[in-house]
Amino acid sequence: MRKGSLFVVSAPAGCGKDTILNELFKRTDKAGYAVSATTRAPREGEVNGVHYHFLTREEFERKIAKKEVLEYTEYCGNYYGTLSKSVNDLLEQGKDAVLKIEVEGAMNIKKAFPKACLVFILPPSWEVLEKRLRDRGTETEDKIVERTNQARREVEFAANYDYLIVNDDLSEAVDDLLAVFRAERLRRVRNDELLKRFK
Amino acid sequence: MRKGSLFVVSAPAGCGKDTILNELFKRTDKAGYAVSATTRAPREGEVNGVHYHFLTREEFERKIAKKEVLEYTEYCGNYYGTLSKSVNDLLEQGKDAVLKIEVEGAMNIKKAFPKACLVFILPPSWEVLEKRLRDRGTETEDKIVERTNQARREVEFAANYDYLIVNDDLSEAVDDLLAVFRAERLRRVRNDELLKRFK
Repeated sequence: MRKGSLFVVSAPAGCGKDTILNELFKRTDKAGYAVSATTRAPREGEVNGVHYHFLTREEFERKIAKKEVLEYTEYCGNYYGTLSKSVNDLLEQGKDAVLKIEVEGAMNIKKAFPKACLVFILPPSWEVLEKRLRDRGTETEDKIVERTNQARREVEFAANYDYLIVNDDLSEAVDDLLAVFRAERLRRVRNDELLKRFK
Repeated sequence: MRKGSLFVVSAPAGCGKDTILNELFKRTDKAGYAVSATTRAPREGEVNGVHYHFLTREEFERKIAKKEVLEYTEYCGNYYGTLSKSVNDLLEQGKDAVLKIEVEGAMNIKKAFPKACLVFILPPSWEVLEKRLRDRGTETEDKIVERTNQARREVEFAANYDYLIVNDDLSEAVDDLLAVFRAERLRRVRNDELLKRFK
């Protein structure tokens, strides 16, 4: 059976990354979400193995030592990372594995797996992004400025990604991402086996 | 306005290239067919400017001398080629320009335009291709052998293409090609202008 490919999806907060991915997984069974691992405490409603694999610090460090972690970072005193098993289980089933990770993690994945396909989701404009963050009504003005500045830092990495999707219209953005997945499966560099059949 | 990109679609005879492209153009207005030019006589039902631009030998050679021909080849005493104007008119309208050309022409296009995207359409197998040629009922056995051998020579070039599409199910193959067009439009290398907006 044909093995899946590794995809990374990144986006600044407020760009609709989670909504796009949720829609995507409803519409295709050829791709699966590779759940991240973290040592931070679960928030209300978060389910172990669905939103994150929640690990203790000791468990996480043991997995790092055993090289069972593809990439990880430490943020506010907690580890966040991708377990090799989460990815390999999907690939072995012939599914594409989708990692939802931030820009530094994405760069690490690209270094370790040059064939990984990196997708960056952009807002229509800075103005729209700010408006979206403000309209949530859950953030203070300081927090909105902080998030916008963070978004600007993240978008600087977009030049290192393979695909750029502007989330202006949700349904178009989902179609864009589905097209990227479908097209990547057809790339010649991922189909050496296919050409061998025609020798 | 954003300029379109250049696509090349090649396939051995019997792989359904024309049917796939006809369906594609029904389903998208973002891509247009860049009609080839030839010095051969029109066959019954062929319309100038639709199936080919029919030129005299003198006209074709004048265009070559004036560098108005992107690529051309001579086959059975006739010229076949792509006029720059056919492509540029589409690109200037913001459409993707699709060239339906054989493998040597495709290689020439890739040399002249490294950003051109090359798509090769494959039959499900050699057996199916032979059966399809035989089922047409219009070809002698000699002709079928000749076409199959020609197909084998052409498929050797497939390794130089960017995408491989197997035409097993027509509707899937059209969806594949639409996905390739859509995804290519999202590639970072085609979107320098987009990232400038976020500086």
